[in-house]
Amino acid sequence: MHLDDWLDFFRGIGSRLREEVSTLSGQPEARREIRRGAGGDTTTYIDQWAEGIILDQLHRLHARGESFTLVSEELGWKEFGKGGYHLLVDPIDGSLNAKKGVPFFSTSLALIEGRELSGTKLGFVVNLANGDEFWARQGAGAFFNGRRLQASHSERIEILAYEANSPANDVSAILPLLPYVSRTRCLGSTALDLCYTTCGFIDLFLIPGSSRCFDFAAGKLILEEAQGIITDSQGKDLGGLPIDLQYKTSLVASASRKIHQQALDALRRT
Amino acid sequence: MHLDDWLDFFRGIGSRLREEVSTLSGQPEARREIRRGAGGDTTTYIDQWAEGIILDQLHRLHARGESFTLVSEELGWKEFGKGGYHLLVDPIDGSLNAKKGVPFFSTSLALIEGRELSGTKLGFVVNLANGDEFWARQGAGAFFNGRRLQASHSERIEILAYEANSPANDVSAILPLLPYVSRTRCLGSTALDLCYTTCGFIDLFLIPGSSRCFDFAAGKLILEEAQGIITDSQGKDLGGLPIDLQYKTSLVASASRKIHQQALDALRRT
Repeated sequence: MHLDDWLDFFRGIGSRLREEVSTLSGQPEARREIRRGAGGDTTTYIDQWAEGIILDQLHRLHARGESFTLVSEELGWKEFGKGGYHLLVDPIDGSLNAKKGVPFFSTSLALIEGRELSGTKLGFVVNLANGDEFWARQGAGAFFNGRRLQASHSERIEILAYEANSPANDVSAILPLLPYVSRTRCLGSTALDLCYTTCGFIDLFLIPGSSRCFDFAAGKLILEEAQGIITDSQGKDLGGLPIDLQYKTSLVASASRKIHQQALDALRRT
Repeated sequence: MHLDDWLDFFRGIGSRLREEVSTLSGQPEARREIRRGAGGDTTTYIDQWAEGIILDQLHRLHARGESFTLVSEELGWKEFGKGGYHLLVDPIDGSLNAKKGVPFFSTSLALIEGRELSGTKLGFVVNLANGDEFWARQGAGAFFNGRRLQASHSERIEILAYEANSPANDVSAILPLLPYVSRTRCLGSTALDLCYTTCGFIDLFLIPGSSRCFDFAAGKLILEEAQGIITDSQGKDLGGLPIDLQYKTSLVASASRKIHQQALDALRRT
């Protein structure tokens, strides 16, 4: 299947999820705990619901003759025939927001050739709370609701966003940067943080602790296709990372080269 | 005018703002700086636009014979005839999100008898990014999209949300609480933080630095009408605060009495 068809397929999944999610998010049913997912997090009903819709679409796609391997936070590895792309899926990125009702969560889908993140050919993220769509094709640019994105040239960190899986450790790690920023945000969906960083809505995004590839693979391509930068907190490129549900890395991302460097310098001084 | 009519009037303002805001938020025009507002913040075009729509509606209301005094972050004090309620307005609460494009900002409207917050008769907050509406009438309960709200009985702080006007100082102030929380959020709109705390989407909300009455008057009534608790960081009730654009206070808010007390204890120990 051509990458344009994969994009249409991803957008179709996004529309299906978005149509139904508003009746579920924040409801007691959404929070019901189902099991522990392949990535280690607890799966709640709203995760299972999203995964069910995605699986249904993948089975239909496979029945039409397409082969691929699903790699999902919730389900682990699952082959649909032999060969083809790896499809890295986070059914709900921002699960806690979705189950509690905070209107900021997304679905993240990345299509990868081979087993390293540098092989990401297509990334798609949809904000399930408001319908914002972001996508990028390797070598063909990044798009926000259909409009081409270009990295901003901000000089000033008006908004530093971060995610903290372990608040007591991770929030301390951002303290050295705070004298340089006007405001902090902690919004709860890594995939969306990266997309809004690409737009320049967020000037600098940090995960001082750990993020896993299904959270950031699609957002990474979107940011990089708009000439933004993403590394770990040591400044190391992430393209060589394997697709692996257990592997964890810190993240530093910005649409501005100058701000990215300023962040790495401040983190190194600590 | 009866309070029910005021509520209809507020909801009408919310609908007007929401209809048009999506074409503006995140656009370069939205960020254009206009002047310094009465509350001390810089007024950008998107603030001025919202204030213009609200003023237009207030002039029409006054022309129909209603008297009241507007107290606005942007415009300061403005009499529409003699006597009547004080109308405390934050045209865009979460201005930075609105101008940058982060989809989380609101309008906050509070109708106050006399000059103290305890005289708040009606509070209305609308999430301009997704249309969520919250309101409360003194003694008559709080409502979320028309459904009656009841404070939750959470025992556990899954989400601690905070706002930090001065990140370098304020983020340090929340560190003592972090060992007790699963996740932090910093979403950027105090009025919405209070409303989502009322719903139990946020378990504990803190402003360790300073908040002003136009940010929290409506949210305070909404939270309290659902049996939630809001105090300053010393545990002091805020009902006696005067309507004053300059007066600033810390905030601690929760829908759960137990969590509120746990937060005050942790803050006192530092």
